[in-house]
Amino acid sequence: MISETVYAELSTVLEGRLTRSKSELNQHGLSETWFPLTPPEVVAYPETTEEVSRLMNICHAHEVPVTAFGAGTSLEGQTLAAKGGLSVDFSRMNRVIRINDADMDAVVQPGITREALNLELRTTGLMFPVDPGANASLGGMAMTRASGTTAVKYGTMKENVIGLEVVLADGTVIHTGSRARKSASGYDLTSLFVGSEGTLGLITEMTVRLHGQPEAISAAVCSFDEITPAVQAVIATIQIGLPMARIEFLDAESVDAVNKYSGAEFPLKPHLFVEFHGSESGVAEQVEMFGEIVHEFGGSDFQWASKAEDRTALWTMRHHAYWACLALRKGAKAVVTDISVPISKLAQAVEDTAADIAASPIDGPILGHVGDGNFHAILLVDPNDPEEIKLAKELAHRMAERALALGGTITGEHGIGMGKKGLMAEEHGAAWGLMGQIKAAMDPKNILNPGKLVP
Amino acid sequence: MISETVYAELSTVLEGRLTRSKSELNQHGLSETWFPLTPPEVVAYPETTEEVSRLMNICHAHEVPVTAFGAGTSLEGQTLAAKGGLSVDFSRMNRVIRINDADMDAVVQPGITREALNLELRTTGLMFPVDPGANASLGGMAMTRASGTTAVKYGTMKENVIGLEVVLADGTVIHTGSRARKSASGYDLTSLFVGSEGTLGLITEMTVRLHGQPEAISAAVCSFDEITPAVQAVIATIQIGLPMARIEFLDAESVDAVNKYSGAEFPLKPHLFVEFHGSESGVAEQVEMFGEIVHEFGGSDFQWASKAEDRTALWTMRHHAYWACLALRKGAKAVVTDISVPISKLAQAVEDTAADIAASPIDGPILGHVGDGNFHAILLVDPNDPEEIKLAKELAHRMAERALALGGTITGEHGIGMGKKGLMAEEHGAAWGLMGQIKAAMDPKNILNPGKLVP
Repeated sequence: MISETVYAELSTVLEGRLTRSKSELNQHGLSETWFPLTPPEVVAYPETTEEVSRLMNICHAHEVPVTAFGAGTSLEGQTLAAKGGLSVDFSRMNRVIRINDADMDAVVQPGITREALNLELRTTGLMFPVDPGANASLGGMAMTRASGTTAVKYGTMKENVIGLEVVLADGTVIHTGSRARKSASGYDLTSLFVGSEGTLGLITEMTVRLHGQPEAISAAVCSFDEITPAVQAVIATIQIGLPMARIEFLDAESVDAVNKYSGAEFPLKPHLFVEFHGSESGVAEQVEMFGEIVHEFGGSDFQWASKAEDRTALWTMRHHAYWACLALRKGAKAVVTDISVPISKLAQAVEDTAADIAASPIDGPILGHVGDGNFHAILLVDPNDPEEIKLAKELAHRMAERALALGGTITGEHGIGMGKKGLMAEEHGAAWGLMGQIKAAMDPKNILNPGKLVP
Repeated sequence: MISETVYAELSTVLEGRLTRSKSELNQHGLSETWFPLTPPEVVAYPETTEEVSRLMNICHAHEVPVTAFGAGTSLEGQTLAAKGGLSVDFSRMNRVIRINDADMDAVVQPGITREALNLELRTTGLMFPVDPGANASLGGMAMTRASGTTAVKYGTMKENVIGLEVVLADGTVIHTGSRARKSASGYDLTSLFVGSEGTLGLITEMTVRLHGQPEAISAAVCSFDEITPAVQAVIATIQIGLPMARIEFLDAESVDAVNKYSGAEFPLKPHLFVEFHGSESGVAEQVEMFGEIVHEFGGSDFQWASKAEDRTALWTMRHHAYWACLALRKGAKAVVTDISVPISKLAQAVEDTAADIAASPIDGPILGHVGDGNFHAILLVDPNDPEEIKLAKELAHRMAERALALGGTITGEHGIGMGKKGLMAEEHGAAWGLMGQIKAAMDPKNILNPGKLVP
């Protein structure tokens, strides 16, 4: 509970930028998935690192739970105030501090969204490629180790965050990483914070790697009669080392959803959406080789989109696929779940998951970033029907166990939050205990996003 | 001190594979650089994870310091037994456990060297590209976050270790990572251990990423009249995004050393050694573009080596450069030091370092992996002359401070060990304290490589 005294103390730091307004509390207690409303007691909108440090200082002294909030687009309940307390909303810390063209990096505040950053980069010839679909904040993306459609070429947040400014549980401000392209100087604290879901500290500034805007881009769509040959075509493409920038799988049900939602007319069959980035000649070579692979696995209905507007339309459809799937059933919410497996096991993982969903009463389109062996099921449920939620969670649980049995991981990009904590022991065994030890050492009062990720 | 009782207890685990032979102790107390002999009290040669776990169990109970030993090629004293105790030599745990062709990864024991692994991979079409020059063990490379000539294209150990089996301070065995290409499942413990220099646990098994052997390779040597245009050519090459596999700088003194040691006849000027990997057409395109850049910056004496034997000769010369530099002065040892800076600051960092060395009585050839902004000075000293060692260490210290002032790091690849601990506070500030907290939580008795890296 945040007492009146603590509230008054927090107020002195933030003046008018602290609120208990019911609507703002609820907005910060909502999730885009099936989780019930879990509001904080107070929302703060800091504007500087110093303010965040002072907030943490006060919360540490009074043992107030603190949950960071970026754009609220996480999918496993990471931003929900599971133990109440303070939600620190970073939307006012959303500036680009510095773009270093020559070194291809940028220093930004955590509240900036990936679309806003790319808008600022537009004239530099550079881009920030990590693209989870949602217009997430960069701080949130770092904290969930987000990835998305382009990770197959450009890597995830793990590879693209090179330095951080972090406020620790007691308000101490630290800096991790450097702007050099590599370092062997001590523990890799940057990687420790990336993916820690706000349980070890709050990011107040970050240095990210930028990439050159490609000289040439070509995107395409093609369809297959069955899931298996579509996935096998992906595996073959990966294995010959063809450098795709994106390679997305959509099953027939996802395609149906996209058609209905975006007015497209794709045949109701499993599809691949792909994109190549490179030099004119490089892309041409890749396109030709990919065409041969698709042909070999019986793919058809090939459509190339070399014009920018066609590509934008294509990826907008893909990015709206989650909403398109939700729209398949009126009033539905989704238990969205993701796993990632070694490429060689991808066909088996997708097939077994599709069969498991087909045998259940739950509808669940399957789609994903198959170039990373990563795919999602969007399990549609009536949020007021506990039985449906239970069945969907059981499906998600079996999907995660399937990933582990195949040498994979219970989540490729959505993270743990509250949704997957129950699977951590199964994936990590004694290493989960070690995560808990590290958490306890860094946040002994357990005030940073309590109830998430660690034991 | 390892008492007779503890020695007897350790013996029950290892039978004949435990020794106090003077020559073996000394061999494990030697370094390739200037550090004085620092032998352990006992050397153990375990063959299984279980044996390592039992060793740690005993050492934990009796608070015996434990230092891991791979190939002994680290450069900052990482394998020296600073507090005596047990040296765990992994040379008998040197097997390839499994090669997963389809997923392009391999599970290996930590004692295998990179050359031995690549020999086993030769017929698979795959390779393990990380190449620090020395034929280091993979466990040691992971622990120092090694990189070397090919990191500019393939990444360092950070990017190429995807999973670990680790024995913790108390003997607990944990597993980190998975074989999926990405994961958002909890703290990135793999990255925490990579670069931890044996201070947090002992690696007993590791999963590494493999890469396709390139279809075409072309290597070249060219020279410049001055350091600056050579480095500027590298910066330009990086900035247009030309995907070099290797790009190495050697100053005139290094070239002199290589000529004398390897019987080469390069002109006594700053040189770049480069290599491109890719498809036939891709490499041809890259070679042409690189030629244009070199021409633009006034480079000359271009020699291309497309034949395998010429390339091997070239890179053997480069790999022997350290020994070549040592041979410049009879009986010399080296204070070898490395820094890494943002690419845009590379010319300044190299020039200022060269000027600083020129103004001192110490000889110090400069060379390095300039594609990562990373370079070395090999400061030649008489190991029996404390004054020379002091001057060399001061030069190294100023070089590190120069890196920090330019936004870089005190070491790009050699690590901290005992040699650079004194600079950690300067680079990391409060974050170094956090490293100490993590160490204390994971190894409360401070038995794992005590005296290195952390406060």
